[in-house]
Amino acid sequence: MYNFKNDLQQFTDKFNRQLPSFFAYPKGLEKRVSEAMFYSLANGGKRLRPFLICRTAGLYDVAEDQALSVAVSLEMLHTYSLIHDDLPAMDNDDFRRGHLTCHKQFDEATAILAGDGLLTYAFEVLNKAPHISDAVKVKLSSLLANRAGAFDGMIAGQMLDLATESSPELSSADTVKHIEEMKTGCLLAYAVQAGAVLGQASEQEYADLTHYARCIGIAFQITDDILDVTGDSAKMGKTLGKDQQQDKLTFVSLYGLETAKTKAAELISQAKDSLTSFGEKALPLQALADFILSRDH
Amino acid sequence: MYNFKNDLQQFTDKFNRQLPSFFAYPKGLEKRVSEAMFYSLANGGKRLRPFLICRTAGLYDVAEDQALSVAVSLEMLHTYSLIHDDLPAMDNDDFRRGHLTCHKQFDEATAILAGDGLLTYAFEVLNKAPHISDAVKVKLSSLLANRAGAFDGMIAGQMLDLATESSPELSSADTVKHIEEMKTGCLLAYAVQAGAVLGQASEQEYADLTHYARCIGIAFQITDDILDVTGDSAKMGKTLGKDQQQDKLTFVSLYGLETAKTKAAELISQAKDSLTSFGEKALPLQALADFILSRDH
Repeated sequence: MYNFKNDLQQFTDKFNRQLPSFFAYPKGLEKRVSEAMFYSLANGGKRLRPFLICRTAGLYDVAEDQALSVAVSLEMLHTYSLIHDDLPAMDNDDFRRGHLTCHKQFDEATAILAGDGLLTYAFEVLNKAPHISDAVKVKLSSLLANRAGAFDGMIAGQMLDLATESSPELSSADTVKHIEEMKTGCLLAYAVQAGAVLGQASEQEYADLTHYARCIGIAFQITDDILDVTGDSAKMGKTLGKDQQQDKLTFVSLYGLETAKTKAAELISQAKDSLTSFGEKALPLQALADFILSRDH
Repeated sequence: MYNFKNDLQQFTDKFNRQLPSFFAYPKGLEKRVSEAMFYSLANGGKRLRPFLICRTAGLYDVAEDQALSVAVSLEMLHTYSLIHDDLPAMDNDDFRRGHLTCHKQFDEATAILAGDGLLTYAFEVLNKAPHISDAVKVKLSSLLANRAGAFDGMIAGQMLDLATESSPELSSADTVKHIEEMKTGCLLAYAVQAGAVLGQASEQEYADLTHYARCIGIAFQITDDILDVTGDSAKMGKTLGKDQQQDKLTFVSLYGLETAKTKAAELISQAKDSLTSFGEKALPLQALADFILSRDH
């Protein structure tokens, strides 16, 4: 019987153990930026994106070790986005996952460079991954840059979020959804799509998996908005209630707590439906969808 | 008879004309970050790095159009580094090439995102380049990320520069050279090496071209230090005398103006010597080396 919690925990532990092997520190004073990169990367969460890559690739019997570099590369890119989002000029957060944010632990200049360094290194790790063909590397590099990008990817999401914060009159339900699809959804979609590319998925499977990713992405954001209201800040490792304080439009402020919960549940049900063709092999992805709905941190 | 000034001017004009075709603006408020990216990219200088790629590839009769995406990709990466270096937390500059810096024209958050966006997009443009094999794209992506990176690339150079600024007692002639090799030299080296990879250079040719790049890189920095003392700030489009004001160790403060000039001339001579085997075809690279020595802006 598949045990999701054990699987995720074992994956996270293994992932964290292997992370240091991706770092080689220089000797001079410039090592400060490597230290800051590793500080933020090591203070990671549940490694959901790497897990998603590896378990999606697992649908096609791609070994976890073969997908590992691709997973590390994505986690680096995700971590850069958190470091830069936390900066004083952006969301100005002092804590992240219960630890000081990078610019608080080091300083602002180092944090900007550490983010740049992780974003850059993500592409080096991806392109130096062993046992992956050049054709797949090129496809993944394009896809990653696109999903993380400024036109309709993660950076566009962060820009739209900042722009609507300063002009709240322009915010609408559609905008909120669009922000979250870009800000959170794009990298989750990449995770699943990268797994599909590694597994040489058919077009139909790629579409199904993309639909799965899209549904869990929005559900993830809705539960985030719910937890900002109902969560325990000790468990979450960050300050809660910020959305309300800042009068921010969220799924909860838009629809109310109960409707938001119903919407999240519907999305998770849709996500699971799109995995039908994979049968038993999709148990980890099914369980991950349930986990997103029931998480308390 | 080869006319360098005409060649560079024509190249720069053509490059600038083609830049907009690499941008597609979104419709929503998130377009602000695309606008900031293009603002900084369009306020470009002489496009020396793209010119270096195209003229090095030209040694092997690779058409300029084939090398163009690789060149645009590098210029995007170079521009991101300028946007982030200019930020208040870093060098805090208000002007760049006679125009307001990105964070002054827009705002700090937008400038951080615009830099992130250009760095990310550089890898998308590179990996979507037409007429280039997957094997070459993977090689170039790894190389670009490495040369621009935080361990011994451009970001490491900027970190070392910041770290020695706050601890000037740790600065030495070696440190100054090391900073500049990483900060400026790494991307110039990439430009030449990318051209060599596109042209399928032999190992010996790759080594010769790398030596050329290394020499013009240091010479470029020495002339930059010289121009900070002797230059015309209107022509340079930036505030001069900053090094002296900040008591910064430079090639000029270390060796004096005359010795610095001699050192630069020696390096340029070495750079040109390493091109001997290419004969007449290397005229543009020879002339570029001379230009670096004689430039007044």
